[in-house]
Amino acid sequence: MGRIICCGLGPGDPDLMSVRADREVRAATHVAYFRKKDQRGQARRIVDGLLAKDVREYPMGYPVTTEIAFDSPDYARLLADFYDVWAERLAQLAKTTDVVVLCEGDPYFYGSFMHLHARLQGRVAIEVIAGIPGMVGCWNTVGQPIALGDDVTTVLMATLPQDELERHMRNSDALVIMKTGRNLAKVRRALIVAGRLDEAWLVERGTMPAQRVARLRDAGDECPYFAIVLVHGRGRRIESDA
Amino acid sequence: MGRIICCGLGPGDPDLMSVRADREVRAATHVAYFRKKDQRGQARRIVDGLLAKDVREYPMGYPVTTEIAFDSPDYARLLADFYDVWAERLAQLAKTTDVVVLCEGDPYFYGSFMHLHARLQGRVAIEVIAGIPGMVGCWNTVGQPIALGDDVTTVLMATLPQDELERHMRNSDALVIMKTGRNLAKVRRALIVAGRLDEAWLVERGTMPAQRVARLRDAGDECPYFAIVLVHGRGRRIESDA
Repeated sequence: MGRIICCGLGPGDPDLMSVRADREVRAATHVAYFRKKDQRGQARRIVDGLLAKDVREYPMGYPVTTEIAFDSPDYARLLADFYDVWAERLAQLAKTTDVVVLCEGDPYFYGSFMHLHARLQGRVAIEVIAGIPGMVGCWNTVGQPIALGDDVTTVLMATLPQDELERHMRNSDALVIMKTGRNLAKVRRALIVAGRLDEAWLVERGTMPAQRVARLRDAGDECPYFAIVLVHGRGRRIESDA
Repeated sequence: MGRIICCGLGPGDPDLMSVRADREVRAATHVAYFRKKDQRGQARRIVDGLLAKDVREYPMGYPVTTEIAFDSPDYARLLADFYDVWAERLAQLAKTTDVVVLCEGDPYFYGSFMHLHARLQGRVAIEVIAGIPGMVGCWNTVGQPIALGDDVTTVLMATLPQDELERHMRNSDALVIMKTGRNLAKVRRALIVAGRLDEAWLVERGTMPAQRVARLRDAGDECPYFAIVLVHGRGRRIESDA
């Protein structure tokens, strides 16, 4: 019997993968990874140059991403079928070999692999290797502490309604807003109402070659799905003149 | 001129350091690290077996940790002097050599190195290498997604007053509560009032040899400072029978 080894790949720079994930990726004979239909896929791109020449690849192309609303029954049905089919394929493969599944960031933190994990648990041996979450790569590019002392840090999905975003933005010191993409204008409005726009940063493709870091107030209204908005905490500093 | 290279070491298992941090630690000729007075230090322990034989070590022993209240003037003054002195020493060292500073977790996420960073910025070249935060290592040990879909995730310090803890516990899906230690009883009371004790896990020394994972309701009232309490989110799953 083989195992399913889910490797957290970290934020994008292959040098930020863990030593263990790097070893598993280089040794892999079978790799599977999610990607948008007809695209190369971010996870696959991260491991360019690490995979063995004769590795067998299993791209798992999402049937939909943002073409239909994520809260519609059609979306749920299409995705459920997709995860069912791939869980079955990976379980079959794992009868005879190890399969490395590539996952951006950390698999347990908002990772799509969890939909396969729920379907595979108990059927096949699964190993999950932690990764540096994408948000960590993003806040490292800004070069100041995201949180210190007793700061409260809140991670929000930009898909939430504007009033919920506002409420959390008021109640937290540090903020991380993920899945911005087409929700950027709403995030900006919520930050304005919460009085925090001037503190906000927009980081696109953090730690990757095409990385962009800007004050959100100076950025346009377009950004990729994986862009992250950051507001730094104001926690207890220990000043020299204390 | 040398550089200060702050290496995020991740949650504790040296195999979970990034490829880049691993390379810098192995190549280091001078390493500095924080530790409790008269103790070996967790950061130093993580790199056992990776350091060169003739490496020069600079243990930075905190003058106080929990002996006096962190919000007292004495605490602030002692710590400020400590960071001032070490910033000066590291700046002097970096005139002639690279110095690797070891930091548990991710340096920008509640990391003590930030107090040196604030003092060294602009004086000396600083490179910070992202790491897997301790909380990520902890939630990976439980083996279920900490957050999915549009879950809100909130990171709290157990040093906050109980009513503030309660308010955030009510308003978030997933919860991470750090710096528990002697605050564990207060955290437990807040979780009871917020109606979330039964969902909570206590993870001590996640990913390290002495790791302990337990339901918080079954745990005692004593735990180490670096124990983390986790409550998993209940975000949008994509069910097979949707």
